[in-house]
Amino acid sequence: MHIAVLAGDGIGQEIMVEALRVLGAMDLPNLCLDHADVGGVAYHKHGHPLPPETLELVQSADAVLFGAVGDPSCDNLERHLRPEQAVLGLRKQMQTFANLRPAKMFPGMEDASGLKPEIARSIDVVIVRELNGDVYFGEKGMRKTADGLREGYDVMSYDESEVRRIAHVAFKTAMGRDKRLCSVDKANVLETSQLWRDVVTELSSEYPEVELSHMYVDNAAMQLVRNPGQFDVVVTGNLFGDILSDQASMCVGSIGLLASASLGDGTKGLYEPIHGSAPDIAGQGIANPSAMILSAAMMLRHSFGMDAEADRIEAAVAAVLAQGVLGHDLGGTASTSEIGDAIVAQLT
Amino acid sequence: MHIAVLAGDGIGQEIMVEALRVLGAMDLPNLCLDHADVGGVAYHKHGHPLPPETLELVQSADAVLFGAVGDPSCDNLERHLRPEQAVLGLRKQMQTFANLRPAKMFPGMEDASGLKPEIARSIDVVIVRELNGDVYFGEKGMRKTADGLREGYDVMSYDESEVRRIAHVAFKTAMGRDKRLCSVDKANVLETSQLWRDVVTELSSEYPEVELSHMYVDNAAMQLVRNPGQFDVVVTGNLFGDILSDQASMCVGSIGLLASASLGDGTKGLYEPIHGSAPDIAGQGIANPSAMILSAAMMLRHSFGMDAEADRIEAAVAAVLAQGVLGHDLGGTASTSEIGDAIVAQLT
Ligand SMILES: CC(C)[C@H](C(=O)O)[C@@H](O)C(=O)O
Ligand SMILES: CC(C)[C@H](C(=O)O)[C@@H](O)C(=O)O
Repeated sequence: MHIAVLAGDGIGQEIMVEALRVLGAMDLPNLCLDHADVGGVAYHKHGHPLPPETLELVQSADAVLFGAVGDPSCDNLERHLRPEQAVLGLRKQMQTFANLRPAKMFPGMEDASGLKPEIARSIDVVIVRELNGDVYFGEKGMRKTADGLREGYDVMSYDESEVRRIAHVAFKTAMGRDKRLCSVDKANVLETSQLWRDVVTELSSEYPEVELSHMYVDNAAMQLVRNPGQFDVVVTGNLFGDILSDQASMCVGSIGLLASASLGDGTKGLYEPIHGSAPDIAGQGIANPSAMILSAAMMLRHSFGMDAEADRIEAAVAAVLAQGVLGHDLGGTASTSEIGDAIVAQLT
Repeated sequence: MHIAVLAGDGIGQEIMVEALRVLGAMDLPNLCLDHADVGGVAYHKHGHPLPPETLELVQSADAVLFGAVGDPSCDNLERHLRPEQAVLGLRKQMQTFANLRPAKMFPGMEDASGLKPEIARSIDVVIVRELNGDVYFGEKGMRKTADGLREGYDVMSYDESEVRRIAHVAFKTAMGRDKRLCSVDKANVLETSQLWRDVVTELSSEYPEVELSHMYVDNAAMQLVRNPGQFDVVVTGNLFGDILSDQASMCVGSIGLLASASLGDGTKGLYEPIHGSAPDIAGQGIANPSAMILSAAMMLRHSFGMDAEADRIEAAVAAVLAQGVLGHDLGGTASTSEIGDAIVAQLT
């Protein structure tokens, strides 16, 4: 198993150390880890957030473990040189169009959620976010209006093949769970959403066992606070998925607990926590490495078919939370390495 | 005071009755109410969701009181004939570019919020949503890709004058409150957002007393669950404002409590609850009329300068909630007219 390790910026570096310790504790066969720079750190060293060496490594690897990117010192660079472009570029290059973002309450963590415990307890949803299209990747730029005013624009679009492939992933995910799929769009306003809704509906006849519903995104944002337990699998576009999955993370208690897998047609995947580089706490050793560690578990499951090993890591993270070893994000005092220690101790 | 009354579809009809009773109880001078059809009901009667007669009335009126539109029997009509187009068309025609959506906890309603009471209690935010631009009004349609695939597209854009005028409203709103303004965008991905951020930042020098911050929309959706009390005034584009204000409503306890004012350059405005026509409960007499009544109060304040009268209505709604007269949305049993009765009783 050849893994490209891209720790990136800010807390990305610190949490990656712990994820690799956890993988090390698992006695995996032929584990080969190759590091490369990405994000602001890559820009400062190589002049580009996603340098050719990094892309080459990614191409040859079986899976990519990704920390986080984002560096305030790069905020005024031209867009194509900013750290965020690295993760967008990787997702596109690798054609990982399906981003799976599970959000499930860990027993005992109800207190950390912003939601009432009885509401929080019910959360167990997988958000399936399209990751290669939408307004993220359409034509965009600055132009002048007829009156000479500055105007920014971005084209949102989906074609039917893009919707179909993500919808297949979502229906299959639902088949492996409670067989309920909610497709989120804004079809009362957007043509892109109308096509989305049409194609998802057409496809549903291939999955007669799955109960399909549609919801407008404004209502979905509301329902995720009112009654998140109603959702089993949610499928949505890139932009709405970005917003709703971050929102869901806070319902679960901390964005420091949520992992994600980005998959394409094969088994190769990109695995990253859903949080960012958190420059405000970087370098202090207080970031919660759980989301990164859970992302490594998702890698074992989705890229290497190691379900048992993934289960073991997930159980270890849950056990450590249940023991009350809590990071600062959860109101505790455990440091990054203390959380890593506790998880490794569970595994060995 | 000449008011165009557009009750619209579903519960729009029922809640409007109560709002008009409340206005009637206020002994307003020269109150002239003119009714017209809008939405699905207008489509069925006149073949268009926003018929010419309705537009004419709106043009001559001093303010528009709007119920709700949305009718499942119209879901398969061409987009320009759907009920939602009536509200989009009105907002555009009236050039009401600034949508004010206050979200504040009513004392005693903490239990109704999905959030923990100590978090819910702190909510007191005005969301200032741009209402005439963004991906809502850009070029849109269905087209074929080079491969002959169906593709839906919608162009998102803002020019600097559009951003400037909504930002002025937001800065002024902040000046009248706690002087903190948070501008929400997705500038790490969207050029439209980058222009938005640039222009808002440029304008901030005209409001040196206002503390301006910027936040990405994914983070904002998270912070509205984690710690909504951090916000004083939020300014954002049409699409993000749609999502975040619905989310905020649930933090407050019920979308049945949230009113909105849509304003342009003058005093003429469009006043509507932020909820929709709720076809599932229409005709049962159980909709909560509070958001509609509070919208009428906003009308008195913003279009007619009647601050004292608006305060009285708002106090009456709060008093009735504090008495425990709760609608079904809040776990109570009070009917639409019972809530209206109780509010009218407070005022007379
Ligand atoms: C960093 C940013 C470009 C990215 C996104 O919007 O996709 C992030 O928010 C995420 O969700 O992974
Ligand atoms: C009905 C719909 C077009 C509308 C919108 O998206 O603006 C509604 O959700 C709202 O927020 O007023």
